[in-house]
Amino acid sequence: MTAVQTITLAGEFVMKRGSITSPTLAYESWGRLNDNADNAVLLFTGLSPSAHACSSKSDPSAGWWEDMIGSGKPIDTNRYFVICVNSLGSCFGSTGPASINPDSNELYRLNFPVLTVEDIADAAAFVLDDLGIETVHTVVGSSMGGMTALAFTQQLPGRARRLVSISAAARSLPFSIALRSLQREIIRSDPLWRNGQYDTSGNGPVSGMRLARKLGMISYRSAAEWAERFGRERATDFTHADNPFGIDFEVESYLESHANRFIGSFDANCYLYLSRAMDLYDAADHGGSLEASFAKLGLDAALIIGVETDFLFPVSQQEELALALDQHVPEVIFKRMPSLQGHDSFLVDMDRFRPAIAAFF
Amino acid sequence: MTAVQTITLAGEFVMKRGSITSPTLAYESWGRLNDNADNAVLLFTGLSPSAHACSSKSDPSAGWWEDMIGSGKPIDTNRYFVICVNSLGSCFGSTGPASINPDSNELYRLNFPVLTVEDIADAAAFVLDDLGIETVHTVVGSSMGGMTALAFTQQLPGRARRLVSISAAARSLPFSIALRSLQREIIRSDPLWRNGQYDTSGNGPVSGMRLARKLGMISYRSAAEWAERFGRERATDFTHADNPFGIDFEVESYLESHANRFIGSFDANCYLYLSRAMDLYDAADHGGSLEASFAKLGLDAALIIGVETDFLFPVSQQEELALALDQHVPEVIFKRMPSLQGHDSFLVDMDRFRPAIAAFF
Repeated sequence: MTAVQTITLAGEFVMKRGSITSPTLAYESWGRLNDNADNAVLLFTGLSPSAHACSSKSDPSAGWWEDMIGSGKPIDTNRYFVICVNSLGSCFGSTGPASINPDSNELYRLNFPVLTVEDIADAAAFVLDDLGIETVHTVVGSSMGGMTALAFTQQLPGRARRLVSISAAARSLPFSIALRSLQREIIRSDPLWRNGQYDTSGNGPVSGMRLARKLGMISYRSAAEWAERFGRERATDFTHADNPFGIDFEVESYLESHANRFIGSFDANCYLYLSRAMDLYDAADHGGSLEASFAKLGLDAALIIGVETDFLFPVSQQEELALALDQHVPEVIFKRMPSLQGHDSFLVDMDRFRPAIAAFF
Repeated sequence: MTAVQTITLAGEFVMKRGSITSPTLAYESWGRLNDNADNAVLLFTGLSPSAHACSSKSDPSAGWWEDMIGSGKPIDTNRYFVICVNSLGSCFGSTGPASINPDSNELYRLNFPVLTVEDIADAAAFVLDDLGIETVHTVVGSSMGGMTALAFTQQLPGRARRLVSISAAARSLPFSIALRSLQREIIRSDPLWRNGQYDTSGNGPVSGMRLARKLGMISYRSAAEWAERFGRERATDFTHADNPFGIDFEVESYLESHANRFIGSFDANCYLYLSRAMDLYDAADHGGSLEASFAKLGLDAALIIGVETDFLFPVSQQEELALALDQHVPEVIFKRMPSLQGHDSFLVDMDRFRPAIAAFF
């Protein structure tokens, strides 16, 4: 039994650069919608998580933000009805490149239209419609989810009263574009990717996905954290065996273990589409300048959190976002976190993130 | 006609983890050795350059440090006899994995012993012996060359009077180990690498080398430089053609152009060996602690330069190195450069680096 619920849209879903027929959206929810339907919290995820942000009776496994959502937790399910949507384009229940195209009865693969963060935001609104929610109390997102939350306020002004953006940005800068572009090229360079037509029963671009995931992990953490955590410790759990360039150091062993856990669970084409969507998003496209693009969001308040050791979405970008929002949003709070864990801090440095989120709710 | 000179050692050359027979060392030189043979400057390179640091009559093409070496330049060839050695293990004239093993008459490939920075330093001393130089005025190195210069002072105490280390470190920390380890894995994952037995006539692991080079370039520069230089400019010189994940942004085009220039010129196995040597080096191995390892270098002075935007060898590591040297070396100068170009600044921010080097000489 799974906690995932789905809705399937009737007819054509028009995207920024194409359209698809009758996509499905998967989501999970916790807590109860009140009679006024004004206590909903909409949560967008980063690139890789599913909608399983938190455990529930029907799926007791820990979610990716278990510490943050629940009874008595910072996003308190006694007060709020929390909805987490699996992004359009992903592969955990929502329609994406790994889904069957109902028009052809074949997998979309590279026939899926170019995906944008705006499309992911638009699609989620259909879940709200289905649940009878006109306006959400707060839209929340971290990393790519923060971009999606921001795009949601731009695409659907007035449908969120408050915004929480964590370790995200109003646009990607060339350094993070370069990293993601290289991850995509690594996957595409795996001969088993076969120009997107790979075997989906297990013999796909596993090597490319492993390498791309390792590069992701390098960019998600910080040099300072690793210096403290690993130093120059030698690895013990992998041996060179007959590989003269095998694993010497503990940090290499750590990357190997984590990458092995990731591959297999995530579809390569979905990864490519979601990754590129992050590069393409630029909030300023909605108004000429960042400030102008925020003129009609209809927000009452926004909380923008950045982490000093994040080099994927540096804290200076969060500050830029907060300053631009401050031109039009009555209450904008900007928090600069001294966490050591880089971009991933919101998933691990809970002692800092819990109180910051709790205070805003 | 080339400016490269070579010497071939007679007999066995004992390395830290093995030995090879009669290796050849390639080097170039500029200026004249004086009668006391005490005006020599020994220059070690980073991972990828050849010994061609500077143009000469016999090879007028610009060298990789053209601005720094020459008549009237910071390392003034009217005063100094400058020698640049192609590292042992490299592929520009010195013996390495891409060379013929005289014992088997086949390419060494992965039969080359594990390479260490100490081996590169030791090998260079034979060039000095051949030229009749007992003690060099200054040993200079940047990046991997800085590690080699430091190892030279440890391995051969008293053979250098002064040391210049630029954007190097006394050891690699896990973040830079992770990046280099991933570069190596990317190369090894290219099916055309063929466990090191690749075709050397052009059909080698070109894709793996391109991807590894791109990752290198991402780590050699800084996010701040690229934000200023590229912003979100769209690429014009590459088109998507039939590639749905082709190049969108100028920064991707820049990486593609640079990587294409690199591949073909550098041997994949040599790259693997040199890259791993950087991970393995730890100055503290020579004495239990960093300070202790510097007790008997015989240096009169040292100049340590680091760059604030370098995240491969952060400036804090240069400061650590300078402080440890300061325990035993009479004059230690530590320079913190505010250059924007990251690890590569010593190759491009010449307006800052020229005066710093000139002042020390």
